[in-house]
Amino acid sequence: MVSPLILVNFKSYREGTGDNANRIGSAAEIVMQESGVTIGIAPQFTELHSFCKHYEIPVYAQHIDPVEGAFTGYVPAFTIQTAGCTGTLINHSEHRLSIADIEATIAVAKFHHLESVVCTNNVAVSAAAASFDSTYIAIEPPELINSHISVAKADPDIIEGTVDAVHKINPGVKVLCGAGIQSGECVKTALSLGADGVLLASSVVTAKDPKAVLRELVSLL
Amino acid sequence: MVSPLILVNFKSYREGTGDNANRIGSAAEIVMQESGVTIGIAPQFTELHSFCKHYEIPVYAQHIDPVEGAFTGYVPAFTIQTAGCTGTLINHSEHRLSIADIEATIAVAKFHHLESVVCTNNVAVSAAAASFDSTYIAIEPPELINSHISVAKADPDIIEGTVDAVHKINPGVKVLCGAGIQSGECVKTALSLGADGVLLASSVVTAKDPKAVLRELVSLL
Amino acid sequence: MVSPLILVNFKSYREGTGDNANRIGSAAEIVMQESGVTIGIAPQFTELHSFCKHYEIPVYAQHIDPVEGAFTGYVPAFTIQTAGCTGTLINHSEHRLSIADIEATIAVAKFHHLESVVCTNNVAVSAAAASFDSTYIAIEPPELINSHISVAKADPDIIEGTVDAVHKINPGVKVLCGAGIQSGECVKTALSLGADGVLLASSVVTAKDPKAVLRELVSLL
Amino acid sequence: MVSPLILVNFKSYREGTGDNANRIGSAAEIVMQESGVTIGIAPQFTELHSFCKHYEIPVYAQHIDPVEGAFTGYVPAFTIQTAGCTGTLINHSEHRLSIADIEATIAVAKFHHLESVVCTNNVAVSAAAASFDSTYIAIEPPELINSHISVAKADPDIIEGTVDAVHKINPGVKVLCGAGIQSGECVKTALSLGADGVLLASSVVTAKDPKAVLRELVSLL
Repeated sequence: MVSPLILVNFKSYREGTGDNANRIGSAAEIVMQESGVTIGIAPQFTELHSFCKHYEIPVYAQHIDPVEGAFTGYVPAFTIQTAGCTGTLINHSEHRLSIADIEATIAVAKFHHLESVVCTNNVAVSAAAASFDSTYIAIEPPELINSHISVAKADPDIIEGTVDAVHKINPGVKVLCGAGIQSGECVKTALSLGADGVLLASSVVTAKDPKAVLRELVSLL
Repeated sequence: MVSPLILVNFKSYREGTGDNANRIGSAAEIVMQESGVTIGIAPQFTELHSFCKHYEIPVYAQHIDPVEGAFTGYVPAFTIQTAGCTGTLINHSEHRLSIADIEATIAVAKFHHLESVVCTNNVAVSAAAASFDSTYIAIEPPELINSHISVAKADPDIIEGTVDAVHKINPGVKVLCGAGIQSGECVKTALSLGADGVLLASSVVTAKDPKAVLRELVSLL
Repeated sequence: MVSPLILVNFKSYREGTGDNANRIGSAAEIVMQESGVTIGIAPQFTELHSFCKHYEIPVYAQHIDPVEGAFTGYVPAFTIQTAGCTGTLINHSEHRLSIADIEATIAVAKFHHLESVVCTNNVAVSAAAASFDSTYIAIEPPELINSHISVAKADPDIIEGTVDAVHKINPGVKVLCGAGIQSGECVKTALSLGADGVLLASSVVTAKDPKAVLRELVSLL
Repeated sequence: MVSPLILVNFKSYREGTGDNANRIGSAAEIVMQESGVTIGIAPQFTELHSFCKHYEIPVYAQHIDPVEGAFTGYVPAFTIQTAGCTGTLINHSEHRLSIADIEATIAVAKFHHLESVVCTNNVAVSAAAASFDSTYIAIEPPELINSHISVAKADPDIIEGTVDAVHKINPGVKVLCGAGIQSGECVKTALSLGADGVLLASSVVTAKDPKAVLRELVSLL
């Protein structure tokens, strides 16, 4: 059986850079080894290369751009592949793309052997995105992002609805569920509703003890 | 006397990643040592950290975002400072910012002790940007970017006009000149018109022999 | 049997404003009456109201924004409904939206009883957009927009592929085909490949005799 | 002596469309005639033409785009001039532009004999924008927009600072002050600090009795 994925997005948090970022990377590696649950991290661009080298865990970019050549200040897929990443987030609610760019970005990720985690905001958008054949769809109801309310408790229907809608269009796409995930209970509920993992950020990144939080998250699996 | 700055923007060129990027970094270091002319490079985000560590030359980011916290897929200034960069490009014509964000980005760069190189497209925009007190204004007429026509030959007035307009608003801001720079003659002309250096990209990054191109660029200084 | 739709996008052409815009509106009305083929127009925002009042043809906005309230300089759906429009273009290649905004915009159009014509750039994006249940998907291969090469001749597969992909996801969505349409032959070919009409712009808007062009377009129906 | 300008931005408020928009237009016309104070309005795009025709007051667009030709869903300056407008807002905080586009938009407004009201967020951005020679700079501290706290009371320094900074760069540019303006007292304070008028929105647009609010605003002039 394939392990679920716990994916930790470092966003632009100061706590997600430098020494503290390493503390989180190291915690993720330890808890992954202890529990057998796959724990991925999405650090900041400048640290992707060293995280890929130093930790035995999957590392994701937070974003890539479907460009190459005369594009200053962008993140081409080949730089992410060269850094050694496993995959990338695409279309996070804090970094939305046009529908044409989502399609192009998933294609360019696939070409570079990168997993694609496409973020969506509701069931209808998840269904639409599913036809692009990304590795994951990560559903995050915008009203719960950066809240302390777990989507698994507040809105289980959106998880089930997304899983159904995505699999109806494309059974090969896995579903992550995000927004407000904080406890082993949340993770367990998400998986029982059909999700293949969770996407989370501040509850791990800004935690005093990220290892304890990660242990709690996998505790009921 | 302060050396002029030759700043090489790697953009999203494939030739600006991995081994070839290192070849350019190494060439820049050698030619800087030989000539005493400051040669800076702006590699891709994922490689900033290792370039800062391995080369004794100033390294710039191609872009930073004036954000911190819940911003996924952005480039906060503190990550660029942590990577060890000297400065950053801001508002490149391929990555334009709102006027409010330019002001905020220069301020956040300054706070993190990063030089700011603000790109502009004409004399009027250069004058406006000068009031923000960046380290440099880099004037690049859009019609000459990615051309093989040197701004120094095709439009010397825009260089002189920019230098005058910028210094009238803020004498502390230095001026780089970009677009089509390819030879030592171009660099010499730009400096004689009042510029403090040049910004260039493909002529070095996609060159078969970047060291030869860099030697040519500094040959008349 | 329902008539096909010939939809003329005025874009930001000077020839699509003022007197000449009226000449096109009037030509569309005459040719629609003569031929029985539905001819719609998408004039500029400031002229929507008067075109809706003066011409007995369907009038579309070129864009709407899914907003209401404190949004300065946007185009809320209710203003388009109040003007008397039949529908709106959404996500034109010259005005791309995020996937979340496309979904929200189609929903807000529906709420205001406006037809939605969602523009797409390839088969995969068309399929994704089809799940949003717009009135039309208008497929326009970007490389043929503003060309004089008709999609119906240059790339018939993309029309058939789009019709198939769209109807597989949602049989209720009609397909328009755009880019390079110029003759009655093009229109006939597009319909024979399964399209329900065509979307075109410069060939009518910048024509010396828009009435003659419209008559040619419907000549083989 | 030139009258100050009271400029009412209808934004995308439902109360700023149709019958209620006419109620505001009519109130503005009456209070302008009674008081001799210039009252301008910025209605929605679809209603610009009829407001210009029906009311003897200056009408402004909320936004224009510096484009012409193959740009679908944009607002070219010539359509605003054709509609009969006096001028346009540019770079409202809800619709920010790149610095290059602000420069180009002011130039295109000038070419079409339209007044330009450039919105800014602080003193530094106001100073930069002043070099573009717009008709007005409208300073609106973002934290006070949509608040009920008047900038004139909460932050008089920003008004004085903006007036000073703008006039130092370009004495010909007039200054409006926005954000939270609600009473004749606010307007009087703003003018005494050097402003040439005020920019406001919800306090008039969503008022039960816009005429009463406008009378209050001009009551101490």
